[in-house]
Amino acid sequence: MKLQELSERLGVELSGNSGQDITGVASLESAGVGDLGFLDSAKNLDAAEKSDAGALVVPIGTDLPGRNLLLADEPKLVFARAVRLLVPADTLPTGISDKAVVSSTAKLGADVRIGPFVMVEEDVEIGEGTSLYPGVYLGKGSRVGSACVLYPHVVVMNGCMLGNRVIVHAGAVIGADGFGYVTSKGVHHKLPQVGRVVIEDDVEIGANTTIDRAALETTLIGRGTKLDNLVQIGHNVQVGEGCLMAGHVGIGGSTRIGRYVVFAGQAGSADHVTVGDGVIVGGRGALARDVPAGSIVSGTPAFSHREWVKASLVFQRLPEMERRLRRLEKELGGTGENKGS
Amino acid sequence: MKLQELSERLGVELSGNSGQDITGVASLESAGVGDLGFLDSAKNLDAAEKSDAGALVVPIGTDLPGRNLLLADEPKLVFARAVRLLVPADTLPTGISDKAVVSSTAKLGADVRIGPFVMVEEDVEIGEGTSLYPGVYLGKGSRVGSACVLYPHVVVMNGCMLGNRVIVHAGAVIGADGFGYVTSKGVHHKLPQVGRVVIEDDVEIGANTTIDRAALETTLIGRGTKLDNLVQIGHNVQVGEGCLMAGHVGIGGSTRIGRYVVFAGQAGSADHVTVGDGVIVGGRGALARDVPAGSIVSGTPAFSHREWVKASLVFQRLPEMERRLRRLEKELGGTGENKGS
Amino acid sequence: MKLQELSERLGVELSGNSGQDITGVASLESAGVGDLGFLDSAKNLDAAEKSDAGALVVPIGTDLPGRNLLLADEPKLVFARAVRLLVPADTLPTGISDKAVVSSTAKLGADVRIGPFVMVEEDVEIGEGTSLYPGVYLGKGSRVGSACVLYPHVVVMNGCMLGNRVIVHAGAVIGADGFGYVTSKGVHHKLPQVGRVVIEDDVEIGANTTIDRAALETTLIGRGTKLDNLVQIGHNVQVGEGCLMAGHVGIGGSTRIGRYVVFAGQAGSADHVTVGDGVIVGGRGALARDVPAGSIVSGTPAFSHREWVKASLVFQRLPEMERRLRRLEKELGGTGENKGS
Repeated sequence: MKLQELSERLGVELSGNSGQDITGVASLESAGVGDLGFLDSAKNLDAAEKSDAGALVVPIGTDLPGRNLLLADEPKLVFARAVRLLVPADTLPTGISDKAVVSSTAKLGADVRIGPFVMVEEDVEIGEGTSLYPGVYLGKGSRVGSACVLYPHVVVMNGCMLGNRVIVHAGAVIGADGFGYVTSKGVHHKLPQVGRVVIEDDVEIGANTTIDRAALETTLIGRGTKLDNLVQIGHNVQVGEGCLMAGHVGIGGSTRIGRYVVFAGQAGSADHVTVGDGVIVGGRGALARDVPAGSIVSGTPAFSHREWVKASLVFQRLPEMERRLRRLEKELGGTGENKGS
Repeated sequence: MKLQELSERLGVELSGNSGQDITGVASLESAGVGDLGFLDSAKNLDAAEKSDAGALVVPIGTDLPGRNLLLADEPKLVFARAVRLLVPADTLPTGISDKAVVSSTAKLGADVRIGPFVMVEEDVEIGEGTSLYPGVYLGKGSRVGSACVLYPHVVVMNGCMLGNRVIVHAGAVIGADGFGYVTSKGVHHKLPQVGRVVIEDDVEIGANTTIDRAALETTLIGRGTKLDNLVQIGHNVQVGEGCLMAGHVGIGGSTRIGRYVVFAGQAGSADHVTVGDGVIVGGRGALARDVPAGSIVSGTPAFSHREWVKASLVFQRLPEMERRLRRLEKELGGTGENKGS
Repeated sequence: MKLQELSERLGVELSGNSGQDITGVASLESAGVGDLGFLDSAKNLDAAEKSDAGALVVPIGTDLPGRNLLLADEPKLVFARAVRLLVPADTLPTGISDKAVVSSTAKLGADVRIGPFVMVEEDVEIGEGTSLYPGVYLGKGSRVGSACVLYPHVVVMNGCMLGNRVIVHAGAVIGADGFGYVTSKGVHHKLPQVGRVVIEDDVEIGANTTIDRAALETTLIGRGTKLDNLVQIGHNVQVGEGCLMAGHVGIGGSTRIGRYVVFAGQAGSADHVTVGDGVIVGGRGALARDVPAGSIVSGTPAFSHREWVKASLVFQRLPEMERRLRRLEKELGGTGENKGS
């Protein structure tokens, strides 16, 4: 694609050689002459100068003489769109594989693509333009919206609902039973899990992530929330809009999470916790109680991230602190732990 | 179902309108007139009074004038049974899909249900009434008891054994190789893992959980134990009866766990640890050494939960403690860390 | 197999009855007369003496009168090879199942074995002697070397590359999208992940482990590295040769890990961290910053393992330390936290 065409399709200003051919994307370090690179801030000007990229998406006002530039208010966002224009997404062939099993009672929108070994059970509804990769399972009465992509072996159990433009990566399981038992006389009796999972529009779910169905009602993942791989969402959990959860995050049952909450890697929450809007939980942080909106927390159990950073540094000096304390006790003579001993 | 019939089938006393129609189950908050709700203890009397539920399972002796009640010694247990009566479980159609591959040497009990894309290898035995959802894989010589349910894509590798009434949720892997190598001259040589996994009766295994086969003998999950999603059980581990392990729990190889042990979310154990009966490991707790029966522990490494709670609170004040220590040292003049400096 | 033949095939010296029949392998404790056991060091001489094993692999120089011995420099390594001779590996039947879907553009080496319900997309290359168990998915243009084993339901997304002798356990997902978004005006826009994953020779990957494709270039797993189950490797991560990562380890995006690095169970690293050769991260350790080669670290955030062990012990005494500090303050009168209050 000529740089001219790219700038037009992206709707951004071009500076430099509009006839430059761009055929791919790359990082500044490894870009070649046919690649588009990007510069997020003026801080990396050095790397941009050294880069062999044929063109660069840069912040408006960037001064890089002699380079082919696409000037953007939000260069990373424009670059993201450019990637999709330059590198086509992996897609399934059109149509429904004759190696799939699709119930005659299922309702399929236009241009639904279904690969081999997919099982679509009774009374399923699938919206327009949705793709089901090989091995996907859609349980009875489940619903998948339009323009969704379910990668290989994704499981959506009976009665669960996915909105539009939902992406689910390989091996994720939506709607397995929650972990609920009634223990009586040494036997853990199963509390049948008869609720469902509702995934709103524009959610993305990572590979091998698991989201349990509610015991009675709904486990909810709010619009635009993104979950990474191997995340576990317990039954009855409510996750608000626009949240981000990194790999291995685990959320205990019935916890309620506000909007735009971030859980960094391996973080988690106990069950029955309420988390306010905009909370950030640092890597490995573990919520044990309610957290007010806007808090930034870390630690197990989690408290103020800023205080946790300080306390963690002192923690590393604890043996020395104990020695100092002992010395003081000695100097004061017969005091402290030695008193009366 | 009329409330009368429900009370008879559950074997509990009815108080109120025996002709009330009950068609579903719900929480107290969202129940409608056709729903059965439940009250676990007299503490929630308020919520029960406000609930629109058509009937409530309550502890014997509960005073809720004007309400339709089912009176039970163990209301939650009775409610669990009521849920199953009112909401039918998801089931496979009877028979064996012609899109499954079942070895001619496999032995199948009566009423085994097998969905499409299931692979049953040679010399497998499957007990009466067991269901294999689409995509299940049973390796050579594996055995699955009666009345089991294996949800989509469950993998049971060669030679592994499941008892009766075992439930395995989607994507769980039973019997992959344990993590065992002999390192010599910079090469990690694989120690072939030729043991197996034995899962006893009434075990439930969560979605995408992994249980490794033993190196030489048996990895054992005891009767009635319940594992949540994304749990990892290393090779040679012995888990006793009636244990509970929540999401993301990881148990290192050769660890021996007693009966009725509880691991809360994201907890774990090192390898070669012995854990006594009835131990409770708090959320994120990590066992580094043997734990006597009945202990309640938390922390990394884990110690007394009660002491951990106290220590964790002091941890949050560590920066202040260090300042106080420094002040004392200063007052004593030239002592403490400053001595001689 | 006669012990004589076994010693010859293993190339080690025999002492005792060369005509002893050996039909299996077992631990010292449970071995019977037909089993081969092994003794890793002279420390377990007692267990070896009590064992009923028909023969034992032992260190050269071991004195066990009256026993049948195979004498080896590296007994565990020799035992590992003996296990494979005595217990045949699980294998697929030769040939390609007529229930698999293999693109006509795929290039298959000699003796490739493909089970039912496998999907091999366009332009895939598979090397000689590789086995694909039921339900494996190989995306467009992916490449799998020779003598690999991919267990049931393994997913290799488009464009990803596996070397030779790679073992991937059931349910692992290689090449799902990395977790990358550009947030603008409250919307998390997906940064299309158009890189790939490259797995070098002799790597082993555990069940349900996930390795994300790079955003633009390559996520790399170096030669001979072994990953356990439920491990998460973020996009753009570079893992060197010969590393070991135990269950639930999580590595954040763009982190660079040297050669022969060990991560114990549930350990992890933040993103953009550089880890030197030979680093050992203790169980549950979490790297927050670069770690020089040869370090042994633990804790969250991780620091010197030796110091962490000491600090963790003092941590358990924190409530007592605080009491001692308060006592000193009291004795000094009006000092410390009470000053001026």
